[in-house]
Amino acid sequence: MDLYLIGDVEGFTPQIGRLVSMLNYVRHTTLEAAEGLSPSQLDYMPDVQSNTIGALLSHIAAAEVGYQAATFYERDLTAQEKDEWGAVFALGDRSRQEIRDHDLSYYLARLEQVRAVTLLELGRRDDAWLETETTFRNGQRINNYFKWFHILGHEINHRGQIRWLRARAR
Amino acid sequence: MDLYLIGDVEGFTPQIGRLVSMLNYVRHTTLEAAEGLSPSQLDYMPDVQSNTIGALLSHIAAAEVGYQAATFYERDLTAQEKDEWGAVFALGDRSRQEIRDHDLSYYLARLEQVRAVTLLELGRRDDAWLETETTFRNGQRINNYFKWFHILGHEINHRGQIRWLRARAR
Repeated sequence: MDLYLIGDVEGFTPQIGRLVSMLNYVRHTTLEAAEGLSPSQLDYMPDVQSNTIGALLSHIAAAEVGYQAATFYERDLTAQEKDEWGAVFALGDRSRQEIRDHDLSYYLARLEQVRAVTLLELGRRDDAWLETETTFRNGQRINNYFKWFHILGHEINHRGQIRWLRARAR
Repeated sequence: MDLYLIGDVEGFTPQIGRLVSMLNYVRHTTLEAAEGLSPSQLDYMPDVQSNTIGALLSHIAAAEVGYQAATFYERDLTAQEKDEWGAVFALGDRSRQEIRDHDLSYYLARLEQVRAVTLLELGRRDDAWLETETTFRNGQRINNYFKWFHILGHEINHRGQIRWLRARAR
């Protein structure tokens, strides 16, 4: 894979291909940041307000599920999605309590499963869809390209925290 | 400014405009993460291996200077650039020692000054330039779009750390 090229990707329209290049690269770096971590490292908390690496990895996948619902299906989360991902849509006490004692493979499988849906759905859409705008109640405009750019920025933001935790986790 | 639209931006070719939309949005969030911080908060270190928010802000600007040299001017850093930015190209003991006791305005001015050059130079270039590829010694291909995407990812990564520090800095 040409990890360091932002450009056309087979199976996607031009702009979506560029977005997919970015999504692929960011995911590569997230996986690198998590590589080889043990369950106790994944559960490491330097202080009581911290999120664990495990919770951050789950949260990255959960956010992507939320944006799939919003942009691909234009609906709220289903009861089943809320049940499956409820502990990690927002990070906090609940994610600190519920997300622990898993192997890295558990988190990686969730990330991969969610991403497969994203790529499938992006492959079915075109650049006009990517530029489709909606507006917030205050009139602020937002397009699908921004929403998916936001998702990859969200992942990088938490990857920065994962690296910080990884450098300290025992 | 349409902060939540990734798309055409006046004064830039189509692909560069999309990149500029992303750069603008990311910078907005960085400034938000630093807003109102005092010199002591900017110098806060939770442990000895930490970087301060001030050092991270300087490092974000320094990385951009490095990529300007590499992509716009295709040269190494000048002696003057090395002198000005040397403490923060890499984060570590030197940045921990040298970057402190500044007001937020000091960091914001540096970020703004560097970004103005980036936007000026991007405005002079076109989409063909953005897709121009070079290769690493190992043959791996990389294009200018990727390099600038990397810079914004780098900024988001450190912004994630700034937020973490901000939530704890006194």
